[in-house]
Amino acid sequence: MTKAIVLGGSRGIGKAISDSLKTIDIDVFATSQKDIDTSNLNSVKEFLKINNETDILILNTGGPKPKPFSTVTEEDWNKYHNQLFLGFVTILQNIKLNDGGYIFLISSNVIKEPNEKLIISSAYRAAFSEVFKVLSKEYAQNNISCINIAPGPINTDRTQELIENVEEFEKTLPMKRLGKPEEIGNFVKAIIENDIKYLSGVTINFDGANSNYIF
Amino acid sequence: MTKAIVLGGSRGIGKAISDSLKTIDIDVFATSQKDIDTSNLNSVKEFLKINNETDILILNTGGPKPKPFSTVTEEDWNKYHNQLFLGFVTILQNIKLNDGGYIFLISSNVIKEPNEKLIISSAYRAAFSEVFKVLSKEYAQNNISCINIAPGPINTDRTQELIENVEEFEKTLPMKRLGKPEEIGNFVKAIIENDIKYLSGVTINFDGANSNYIF
Amino acid sequence: MTKAIVLGGSRGIGKAISDSLKTIDIDVFATSQKDIDTSNLNSVKEFLKINNETDILILNTGGPKPKPFSTVTEEDWNKYHNQLFLGFVTILQNIKLNDGGYIFLISSNVIKEPNEKLIISSAYRAAFSEVFKVLSKEYAQNNISCINIAPGPINTDRTQELIENVEEFEKTLPMKRLGKPEEIGNFVKAIIENDIKYLSGVTINFDGANSNYIF
Amino acid sequence: MTKAIVLGGSRGIGKAISDSLKTIDIDVFATSQKDIDTSNLNSVKEFLKINNETDILILNTGGPKPKPFSTVTEEDWNKYHNQLFLGFVTILQNIKLNDGGYIFLISSNVIKEPNEKLIISSAYRAAFSEVFKVLSKEYAQNNISCINIAPGPINTDRTQELIENVEEFEKTLPMKRLGKPEEIGNFVKAIIENDIKYLSGVTINFDGANSNYIF
Repeated sequence: MTKAIVLGGSRGIGKAISDSLKTIDIDVFATSQKDIDTSNLNSVKEFLKINNETDILILNTGGPKPKPFSTVTEEDWNKYHNQLFLGFVTILQNIKLNDGGYIFLISSNVIKEPNEKLIISSAYRAAFSEVFKVLSKEYAQNNISCINIAPGPINTDRTQELIENVEEFEKTLPMKRLGKPEEIGNFVKAIIENDIKYLSGVTINFDGANSNYIF
Repeated sequence: MTKAIVLGGSRGIGKAISDSLKTIDIDVFATSQKDIDTSNLNSVKEFLKINNETDILILNTGGPKPKPFSTVTEEDWNKYHNQLFLGFVTILQNIKLNDGGYIFLISSNVIKEPNEKLIISSAYRAAFSEVFKVLSKEYAQNNISCINIAPGPINTDRTQELIENVEEFEKTLPMKRLGKPEEIGNFVKAIIENDIKYLSGVTINFDGANSNYIF
Repeated sequence: MTKAIVLGGSRGIGKAISDSLKTIDIDVFATSQKDIDTSNLNSVKEFLKINNETDILILNTGGPKPKPFSTVTEEDWNKYHNQLFLGFVTILQNIKLNDGGYIFLISSNVIKEPNEKLIISSAYRAAFSEVFKVLSKEYAQNNISCINIAPGPINTDRTQELIENVEEFEKTLPMKRLGKPEEIGNFVKAIIENDIKYLSGVTINFDGANSNYIF
Repeated sequence: MTKAIVLGGSRGIGKAISDSLKTIDIDVFATSQKDIDTSNLNSVKEFLKINNETDILILNTGGPKPKPFSTVTEEDWNKYHNQLFLGFVTILQNIKLNDGGYIFLISSNVIKEPNEKLIISSAYRAAFSEVFKVLSKEYAQNNISCINIAPGPINTDRTQELIENVEEFEKTLPMKRLGKPEEIGNFVKAIIENDIKYLSGVTINFDGANSNYIF
């Protein structure tokens, strides 16, 4: 049976992906903080001792709370360097993806439009996106597709925390609403279900026509 | 019944999309050159007299044969300005998209990496991609999603014509093969079937990890 | 003596470039509408009969007035296709750039962030930017540098027309002011004066840190 | 007298910038490894105790030797996280840029086209470019311009090391040569000398028309 590991699978977008994959007869391991904490490399390594092989891998993790640049400490940088970059790197260096598999990275639209409030996320998610792009070419040789999804404003707990007045904010969006986590969940499921492999090495904005830049 | 118009639906990627959509109970009008010739604005206008409303629209058309810049004539520019830009513009100015619908543009990876041989396509497909991006915001208000798919090397008659030695070329690709038109066909189908609406205003490379630029 | 042709050299950014180049002992032909009208291909061809060779070429022209997409006529599209695209193409197909020369394209930030109001400019300036990118590689062989400058909000008559309340608008800008045409003029001059040739095939945002996208 | 700090100013591009700035009566501190080692945060902090204010700052540092992804160790990641990211961050958090000043970041074309061999550089230089973009908006308020220069193949010791047969490689380049460090040096000088401030928040490819992507 096809096996999927969904990091951060207990809530938000991770949970939605997890739920979607379960509908198509995939054996899903939706991890929570207690299974693996990507900000802690020891936790990552422990996890990898047991989970060292999969067909589908969803690289997904929350970001830090907003913090102005001038107040970010060395400790903060190092913590999120682990959480948003080095944890994922360590996973990819140690896990075996089975031929014909998929890796989805759930990054963020801040990689294209870095954001003052989310400056830590902007930096490290972009850094990992570079690594992921490079690796997509190697994985391609084993028919493994690497897809970077860069969500815009999606209706998660985190967005509810970040945005002061969600209802007012929604009025400013082209679709007059936040995206639904299930839309991303179903997107991931649909790619896999339809065995679409040539979609790889790509970053896909998922933002309801909200961004202004052309590509 | 949901209605789809697939331009250039008789061959290549257009046909694949057409075939995929038919599998999910959509009433598909797969046009051929005799139904509408987007290089001829009169033909476009005639077509629009009868076909002035749809749920799903696939903007798809072949490009010109390779021609070095210095030899492209004023007539050539104007012809392909019609075929790759003004024909599509005229359609969008005159056709009604029903609420909750979809517009897919099949452009090309040359919009991000313009190509000496395909300089005409590079220019006009990019021009229309700009228009399409702008309009995605208006269409969003009626819950209509606009998705620009930018295919790389896909196995169509046209690619077979453009590439001298296809077999050798395939060896240079990360996936060691051309993309299958059905992969794009199924992708389009999957988006619609799963009612994924928040994917809009986006350009999606579909190139099997072949491109090198990060976004 | 080094020769420069500055299209649209009688006002705005074109005039500023023209004025800057004159300070470094360059023989500048700053054209006005009566010398060449790029929206009229016959005018372009007449101009080229006499001006068929230069060391430095500045491709610069105003754009159309804002017009909503639904009201743009076929005549409008064709007119600005000439003015913003085909006129420049015709020039590059027929003028000889001397070895070691420079071509500067003054495009606009709308090529990266297409704009509802300036949809015509967005489309055709992007189209020409694609052509210009392709040609930069050919020109490089003769040590000719091609530089695309994409200005943001610069203090020209046109900006004053486009923006309702300039003073209020300036407060929203990172630098709290519009750019000065002389900044672009001096930039162009500085590149030439210092014989910087390896800056080529590049699009340079010139917008006072106003854009949000990373590249 | 205007003061400039040029990191990595003893060789390559840093030295060329240093040399150029000295020609226009700027008081240049061209640092070498013994003044500040950005891979060592203690060294950075020591440096900042004495050098805590400047008019012009050039953020420049070499990258790691090529290393395949699978062999990069946790120690490597952390070292270059310091050298290419956290060192620069620490500097910007602690140094005072005088109003009307300039910060130039010398990054690399790998931020747009990440590279298997230079995967570490690709990641961390991109990460810092995100931070730099965000900060450009804050600095703009004090009329300080932030310019990210992304060099392609420039004739430095490092390039000579990285490329096996430089002469053969040069034949593949559009300009048939590597870029000269002085071209970047003079570019930086020219911007400052001409008081061009509105060029900010921008990433400038400096690659002799070598890249293929449009922006």
